[in-house]
Parts: sequence; structure tokens; C-alpha cells
Amino acid sequence: MFVINKQEGLIIIGGAEDKKGEKKILKEVCTHIDKNSGLLLIVTVATEKPTEVGNEYSNLFNNMGIEHLSILHVENREDALKTENIELIEKASLIFFTGGDQLRITSILGGTPLYSSMKRKYTEGCVFVGTSAGASVMSNTMIVKGMDDESPRKCTLKMAPGLGLINGVIIDQHFAQRGRVGRLLVGVAENPETLGIGIDEDTSIIVNKENVLRVLGSGAVYVIDGSSISDTNVSEQHQDDMLSIFDVKMHVLKNGDKFDLKTRRPFI
Amino acid sequence: MFVINKQEGLIIIGGAEDKKGEKKILKEVCTHIDKNSGLLLIVTVATEKPTEVGNEYSNLFNNMGIEHLSILHVENREDALKTENIELIEKASLIFFTGGDQLRITSILGGTPLYSSMKRKYTEGCVFVGTSAGASVMSNTMIVKGMDDESPRKCTLKMAPGLGLINGVIIDQHFAQRGRVGRLLVGVAENPETLGIGIDEDTSIIVNKENVLRVLGSGAVYVIDGSSISDTNVSEQHQDDMLSIFDVKMHVLKNGDKFDLKTRRPFI
Repeated sequence: MFVINKQEGLIIIGGAEDKKGEKKILKEVCTHIDKNSGLLLIVTVATEKPTEVGNEYSNLFNNMGIEHLSILHVENREDALKTENIELIEKASLIFFTGGDQLRITSILGGTPLYSSMKRKYTEGCVFVGTSAGASVMSNTMIVKGMDDESPRKCTLKMAPGLGLINGVIIDQHFAQRGRVGRLLVGVAENPETLGIGIDEDTSIIVNKENVLRVLGSGAVYVIDGSSISDTNVSEQHQDDMLSIFDVKMHVLKNGDKFDLKTRRPFI
Repeated sequence: MFVINKQEGLIIIGGAEDKKGEKKILKEVCTHIDKNSGLLLIVTVATEKPTEVGNEYSNLFNNMGIEHLSILHVENREDALKTENIELIEKASLIFFTGGDQLRITSILGGTPLYSSMKRKYTEGCVFVGTSAGASVMSNTMIVKGMDDESPRKCTLKMAPGLGLINGVIIDQHFAQRGRVGRLLVGVAENPETLGIGIDEDTSIIVNKENVLRVLGSGAVYVIDGSSISDTNVSEQHQDDMLSIFDVKMHVLKNGDKFDLKTRRPFI
């Protein structure tokens, strides 16, 4: 018998999920929706190639047996006011944000009726999924831009307010592949109250209602906990200096590992 | 009879509040605490001159009749673990953040037991006041650095996660004096869900439990509402381009004006 996992409302993917082989992550996404009756809505607002990207995911999910699929194209703020687009949100059981540019998502949707509908749907149990830019945007404060393959350097990180579907974390994606530990460390050092979560490509975290996440995918998930930081020069002058951070804690989680965001503890 | 205003839990000051003349804002602060029994705690973590700044405010409040005053010096993360410092937070009726560097506040306090105590105290009704850097830090996402006296230009704004005592807004301070409308517009365009609030020097907003703010002080408070933005190039390429934003809404509020953060409407 087909059982939908109703306890897990948020799936965050580090980009470049497998689309040709086993497709483990996309298959997992399909277990969060009733294949015969639920509407899976693909939101392409992040990308400047909405048709191409939308069709690719639509074909993938269709081949996995999802019967009801729609693509929501929102290319500008006017589109986010249209009744037919808001109705699509209202009908959706699962909303999937593609990759692209995270600032496109917030700058086009922020403060619109469509965004209000999304937030309400989330509280009502609609499952939200995001990959790449769609992953970054899930937290309250999101990384927009930073140096890849660089040690942490002050003032190199650009952040902005995100969608706020998950609190107390900063998400980064394409993590090992683009050498992003430096930039995530800057974010955590700036406010160690916030956990840094770096997700590799073809890797995802699935977050349940109790704020416990589990890892699914072929890569790793890095959790950076700054609460133990004993000293850092992040706030001092000389912007171009390297950042020093003492005693930061990091967890590297693999497929199947879990992490409790409330207690900040990993477990199996 | 002396009445404490228990309905207003957050006072956010745009910096450089009058300390020699009428001292309207600091006097207002004193109406939020029982002068004879409440402990007013001055938190100097933002500044690199904690003794000087702490003593200045301590003398000011003492001359206004506050009997119980303490200064909390937290100069590094180790200080934020000390029992005696946490006890000071526990005893406080009103916590006053001085100016300085907002990243010092979050990078030193974030993820520490002292910060947890503060957040709990806030939910229990302890009044929080912040001026300048202490103002910026109040929101979920805070402005750290940006260009003063400049038109909005992309990628010139540095933000980071703040203390999160007020949701859905970005606060900016020394607003007209340092020509900061450009940088606040960038922040709002990046996510128009977030209201921009720019507070002039010697000007404050006092926020009540119903998320209604009132303005007190000699300058203006600018509320930038991006929900009406019809188009912006904020998310597109070419980082050094000027930012274009169409149809942004702005309110300029003066002493006594009110603004409902829920409905996004000003009133008198």
C-alpha cells in the first residue's frame, strides 16, 4: 500500500540531483505526494530558462508516475498577482522550486499575494522542495553570493532575507563541489546562533515537523555549529583580512544520518 | 501615580539620541521600568569603548532617577558563558544595547547561554532597547554595511542574521544623516516581503505587542514597503549596475505617527 510521509514537510537539495540513474532524491520527493490525486507544482521563478527547466522536471516526475503535474511560470512581479497563478498554489500538494538565482525568487515573490498563499499552504501541510537556489532560499537569512574555493575572508559574503520556511539555519548548496566551507564559516561566525548547513550536489536533507533532519543522497551534508566559538575577529576592522575563528564545531553527515536542529546533535 | 507601560516591549533608536537637552527618548525609556525596583541593564558588547560608553549611559539614567543600574561588559565569547553575566540578564527589567558594531553583538553573543537567557526574558516581557548598532541588530536579517550617500547599486549591501526580536523588517539607522535610503532600497528590493525601516538620529520607534509602532523623536522614520514593486533588476547579472525599482511605496513618519506592521498601514 502506498503511504505518504506526512511528517516531513521540507526537502532541501544541494543541486545537481541525479536525473538519469537511480534518481534516489527525486524518487523520495515522489513519496511525499499521492501519485494519483496530488498536484505536484514546479516553480521556475529562479531560472531565466523557465520553459526548459520546467519541462525537464515535468518529464522526470511524469515518468515516475506522478499523474497531476503543473508548471508555475512567474517571470515578474505582475505574474505573482495573477489569480490563475495563486489558484495553482492553492491546489498544490507539493511545491518544487528549481535552481537559478535565489534573489529572483525573493525579489519577484516577496510581498505578493502568491507568496502569502505559499506561506499559508506550508503551515497547512503542503510539502516544499527546493534545489540549488531553491535550497538557499528556504531559510530566514540566505546566502546570495560569496567566494567559492576561498578561505573565509571578511566582507565577502552577501546575504539577504529568504523565504523563512526553516528558522535558525543558513543553507548553502553545491557545497564540496564549489568549495564553499569558507563562505559558510563567515556566515556562522557573524551570528553563531545560526547553524550553517552545507549540502553537496545530489544530496538532500529532509526536515520533519519536529525539526529533525535526515540526509539522503550520494554526497555529504556539513553542519557548522558556531555556539562553541571561543573567539573570532569577524566584527573587527580591516575588511579584507582573513577571518580567524576558534573552536567552531562541524558535523559531516552521510546518507541516513540524522540531526536534531533543536538540540544541535547528530544521531543515526 | 507612576505607571509602567507594559504593552510596549521594544524601543529602537536611530542613534545619536539627545543626551544634553530635553532627552525625550531616554526619558521615554525610563517610563518602561519601575524606577525604584526595576534593574536597567546597559549592554556594551557592540562597542570597543565599553567603559566610556557604559558609564555615560549609566550617569544619564541615574540622573533620571533610575535607582538600580548595572553595566554588562561582554568583550568576548568567554564572557558570554560566565554565570555572573547570565544572572545579570535574569535580574534585568530593561536591557539597553548601546551603539558600536552590530556584528560584534551577534558574533560574540550568538549561540551562547547568555543569548538564550535574553531571548527567554524577551518573551517574558523584559523590555529591550537598542540604539544605532543596537537598533540594526533587532531584526531577523540585519544590515551590516553598505554605501552611504549613494543611489542603490547592486551588491553593495552586506547583511547577516540579527537577534530576531522583531520579524519581517530590516532596520537602518542614522538614516537621513548618512544618506542611507539607497542601501535600504536594495535590501527591500531583494525581498519585498520585508519592510524597510529607516530611523533618523534622535528618533525612535516604540513597538507594542500587537506589532504597532509609534514614532518618538526629533527626526523622521521612513517605512519602505516593497510589496507594490512591479519590476526590479536586483536579481539579474552585472553586479555593479545601478538598481532600478518600479512602484516602491514609502511612508515618512514623524513624532507621534503610528504604523501597523501587520497591515502595513500608517495612521495617526
